[in-house]
Amino acid sequence: MSGELTEKILAGDMRTVARLIRDIDDHMPQAREILKELYPHTGKAYVIGITGSPGVGKSTLVDRMIQHLRGRGKTVGVLAVDPTSPFSGGAILGDRIRMQRHSTDEGVFIRSLATRGHFGGLTPSTRGAIAVLDAMGKDYVLVETVGVGQDEVEIVRAAHTTLIVLIPGMGDDIQAIKAGILEVGDVFVINKADREGADKTRQELMMMIEMGKERKSKGGWTPTIYKTEAVRNEGVAELMAGIEAHRDFLFKKDPAILTQFEMDRARMELLDLIKQDVIRTIMDYLEKTGQWEQYLEGLVHKKTDPYSISEMIVDRYLNQCKT
Amino acid sequence: MSGELTEKILAGDMRTVARLIRDIDDHMPQAREILKELYPHTGKAYVIGITGSPGVGKSTLVDRMIQHLRGRGKTVGVLAVDPTSPFSGGAILGDRIRMQRHSTDEGVFIRSLATRGHFGGLTPSTRGAIAVLDAMGKDYVLVETVGVGQDEVEIVRAAHTTLIVLIPGMGDDIQAIKAGILEVGDVFVINKADREGADKTRQELMMMIEMGKERKSKGGWTPTIYKTEAVRNEGVAELMAGIEAHRDFLFKKDPAILTQFEMDRARMELLDLIKQDVIRTIMDYLEKTGQWEQYLEGLVHKKTDPYSISEMIVDRYLNQCKT
Repeated sequence: MSGELTEKILAGDMRTVARLIRDIDDHMPQAREILKELYPHTGKAYVIGITGSPGVGKSTLVDRMIQHLRGRGKTVGVLAVDPTSPFSGGAILGDRIRMQRHSTDEGVFIRSLATRGHFGGLTPSTRGAIAVLDAMGKDYVLVETVGVGQDEVEIVRAAHTTLIVLIPGMGDDIQAIKAGILEVGDVFVINKADREGADKTRQELMMMIEMGKERKSKGGWTPTIYKTEAVRNEGVAELMAGIEAHRDFLFKKDPAILTQFEMDRARMELLDLIKQDVIRTIMDYLEKTGQWEQYLEGLVHKKTDPYSISEMIVDRYLNQCKT
Repeated sequence: MSGELTEKILAGDMRTVARLIRDIDDHMPQAREILKELYPHTGKAYVIGITGSPGVGKSTLVDRMIQHLRGRGKTVGVLAVDPTSPFSGGAILGDRIRMQRHSTDEGVFIRSLATRGHFGGLTPSTRGAIAVLDAMGKDYVLVETVGVGQDEVEIVRAAHTTLIVLIPGMGDDIQAIKAGILEVGDVFVINKADREGADKTRQELMMMIEMGKERKSKGGWTPTIYKTEAVRNEGVAELMAGIEAHRDFLFKKDPAILTQFEMDRARMELLDLIKQDVIRTIMDYLEKTGQWEQYLEGLVHKKTDPYSISEMIVDRYLNQCKT
């Protein structure tokens, strides 16, 4: 059953791919079986992560990047990861209208991902969807996320090249964002570069990069900075050349760099899955046996404290790991 | 030993409190023992979470809120939660200068939290630090976070009242942020309200609130909106009255509302701790036994897939929970 669907995906069947991505987003168990079969067929696509605060023009930039890659005859998969309410689990559609003009192009496949699982399922879902676009044969996979939080950082860490998109003059707290995301950014893009303050933002970024030079991650690549005006398609070709330069660094400079990258990526992917599976298993058990309700009652009435309960759970259910 | 420190904290000794919060931030095991002892003494402070994108003026607003609460004779604890690099774990200091003028006031205690643990330790650390300020006797605890990511959402969910701070005209993607955070916001603040577009932002917010009215969380409170110019202290008194209105709703309208809130808060706190403790235990074990390295090698060489490894780990170490 799943074997047949796997074949269809490897053959690039768009309807099957669309359904599988939806099933991954909905955490359907059968999707996972197909992902297991697809895994050996992944690793060919070049993955580019694009993140930055809302309003910096990421969608327009992605649209231009698609246009550029198509002009070079490359096929492109795009995942737009939308923030989701932790309460309702409902999906929020961002402003992806511009990109939709590519939807009639057979060489482009665009999907939104929205569901956040109960236990941090967004990152595994996104990785799964990337794997599907990779396995279906797309040359490039672009992953756009909204925001600069930890989730987004985790998602873009699945990428070969991570773009951080900024705009000039983002206010007082820019130091905080820049610093927080500096270490995941391979390429910084100052979009809407016609606005006042673009050079100041560039200088600040250069200082931050200089200060962070001792970082050991990603093989010692020094992040680069590009200025774009995505709306007018200005600077996009230069940015794309900058991405290719990072690709060459990763794949051609020293085999140890690529090996390290792949080990890091495998580590993050496996850790995310273990977190999700382990916590889900324990929580299902605690809820089913009624222990969970009892614990909460005890906490609300201050009869116990959360630290002691958590330690007791570890002692009781993970005794094999406590040696 | 820890009993003595607990007594000092309950007595409000500022040096002991400062040291404990630093130890919590550094994930020191002895801090946890003190937190266990403090837990029964918590639950008296009113906790206000303040979040929003960088640059909206949160620190200035918090400064004004401190000023207002002090004017009413209330004591205030402030936690400024800074984004931290997932790679280096290093702390980034935001722009907290304005608040520092309160540092000579005995009734105000301000601390930054920065460390992010390996397995999502930021949220438990912040909860622990809130508990300390609560136990030391502060009437109000203000928790300011930078950003609108999932982490920040989790942190502000520990608050009685959550403020979402916006500024007029945040661009195209404002729909996405607003929607993503709508359900955690009890009170929306349009700061820098003298800027163009404040009324438009207010109208958009009102529409979003109207659309989200069916939400079941937080006892059916309809979020309120305030306009401020924190720099000029405009609108702050009205905002503070709005926060008190939400407090009355939570504590006086219907006992079931408060019970539900406390159960929800206990659930989140316990789940976060279990996640952290369980994953740390399993990961320590896998690393110590050399299994982890083997798994990663297998993944990089595509000899296996992450889904199967994760399932095997659950089967092997959580067999008691798989009935």
